[in-house]
Amino acid sequence: MNNITKSLLEMVSDIFGTPQGAYNIREDGECAGRQSTEQVEIIPKTDKPGIDIMVKAGTKGEKVYIPACITHSHVDDLVYNDFYIGEDADVTIVAGCGVHTDGSEDSQHNGIHRFFIGKNARVIYLEKHIGTGDGSGKRIINPQTVVHMDEGSYMEMDTSQIKGVDSTKRVTRAKVAGGAKLVIKEKIMTHGDQTAETDFVVDLDGVDSGADLISRSVARDRSKQVFRSKINGNTQCTGHSECDAIIMDDGVVSAIPELTANDVDAALIHEAAIGKIAGEQLIKLMTLGLTEEEAEAKIIEGFLK
Amino acid sequence: MNNITKSLLEMVSDIFGTPQGAYNIREDGECAGRQSTEQVEIIPKTDKPGIDIMVKAGTKGEKVYIPACITHSHVDDLVYNDFYIGEDADVTIVAGCGVHTDGSEDSQHNGIHRFFIGKNARVIYLEKHIGTGDGSGKRIINPQTVVHMDEGSYMEMDTSQIKGVDSTKRVTRAKVAGGAKLVIKEKIMTHGDQTAETDFVVDLDGVDSGADLISRSVARDRSKQVFRSKINGNTQCTGHSECDAIIMDDGVVSAIPELTANDVDAALIHEAAIGKIAGEQLIKLMTLGLTEEEAEAKIIEGFLK
Repeated sequence: MNNITKSLLEMVSDIFGTPQGAYNIREDGECAGRQSTEQVEIIPKTDKPGIDIMVKAGTKGEKVYIPACITHSHVDDLVYNDFYIGEDADVTIVAGCGVHTDGSEDSQHNGIHRFFIGKNARVIYLEKHIGTGDGSGKRIINPQTVVHMDEGSYMEMDTSQIKGVDSTKRVTRAKVAGGAKLVIKEKIMTHGDQTAETDFVVDLDGVDSGADLISRSVARDRSKQVFRSKINGNTQCTGHSECDAIIMDDGVVSAIPELTANDVDAALIHEAAIGKIAGEQLIKLMTLGLTEEEAEAKIIEGFLK
Repeated sequence: MNNITKSLLEMVSDIFGTPQGAYNIREDGECAGRQSTEQVEIIPKTDKPGIDIMVKAGTKGEKVYIPACITHSHVDDLVYNDFYIGEDADVTIVAGCGVHTDGSEDSQHNGIHRFFIGKNARVIYLEKHIGTGDGSGKRIINPQTVVHMDEGSYMEMDTSQIKGVDSTKRVTRAKVAGGAKLVIKEKIMTHGDQTAETDFVVDLDGVDSGADLISRSVARDRSKQVFRSKINGNTQCTGHSECDAIIMDDGVVSAIPELTANDVDAALIHEAAIGKIAGEQLIKLMTLGLTEEEAEAKIIEGFLK
């Protein structure tokens, strides 16, 4: 594992040294370390790049690390990771991604993740994305996440793109069975000429299923963001989608939610607000002694927390 | 003017007898009555079906009636009406439409309306749609409205589809200049196998322009509704879009708003909520002695008021 990977791992996965528990570290498209545990087995796929992560039924409190790093320009990485979460399991999955470019050629990581979440299982999924390096080559991260949730299961996806990612297209598809609940919390900050596109489609298929999609984003400089979220209420269910965006400089943000109630017992709500930082907020912090830039930074920090 | 037209006019335009002020009554694609006034001139187009409505600058308090009626099956009516509203004018335009079918063939009215609203002018635009008759032929109304608003002008579109319209596609496009404000209040109730589609696109182009789009709808039986609204904030401006829908029986509603902030001083907000009538509301009214059906009717009446 090279030093750039070590540094990226600290930023995206809070991994310092060797992680506790099951892990698979991907470095420039290769495996840089793998460990299974009694409860969590990680098996490399034989037909294509990627791994199967098998979490035994009833597993409690384990953390699974599956970060991916790219450490130089001209890497085009595509990986298929499938997660099979046994019934009643309760696990946290840490899946950060860092892309570093040092030259003029682009590098990209495309991770296609599928989740099969068993009955009453509970998954916390943490995904931090970052781009680093002095290279002019673009840092591109395109995550695709497909989620199948069995009865009574719970999944919380906590995703954030901190900085340095030039282009991202984030696609998430979920099918939610009876009594199951999906929570997605997304935070994105873009700057320079970056582009970020988010595309959620959630089918609430089971009685008393639920979804809560919360996106907070900041678009600075000339960056552009598009947020799409589609919730289909196909039975008695509750869906909520919320998109709050702060624009600065010449940043551009589009919010395109879509709610469809296909059943009389579907209750769906959406809210979106796009605007700049309120002048009063800035002035209040500036009267406390902060410069305008410090005040802006403080407000954004609070907004994305 | 036949009796069906008379009856439709009462329902969609509150016209009883001959209207006061300028009017043009369209019956089955023909002119059934026209009158200009000193301030409002109505001129038939020579190149295609329709009229030009010229409102002189400074006109105050005039009402203009331009209803259209179809009184039997197998009518396919297409009309182009252009409104030129002079500077500082303040007028109310009543533009209802009723379609009656008596046989197995469909009838439709397609009205393409363009508005050129002068500086500081003020327009209230009232549009009621209804379908009547025992014919199995579908009653179809497709209004297209294109609005150009000059500096400081105000337009309020108050549109409602009461009942009996089997299929409607309502397209509205607006470009709003500095200091001008567009307000759209839409109310739609669908039943049976009806379909209704609404499609707003508003460009907020001028400094301190504003838009407020409010839609309330009820979908009963097996009816289907789609609500699209797109607000583009291209400068310092405020935009608000709101869609509240009640679903009943097997009704289906989609809400697809789209907000795009292309300028740091654009402030855009959207809200949408889709669901059935709250059980507590029904129970409350039923404890006051109403039957369940009466209680539902009361709640819907209030919701669409």
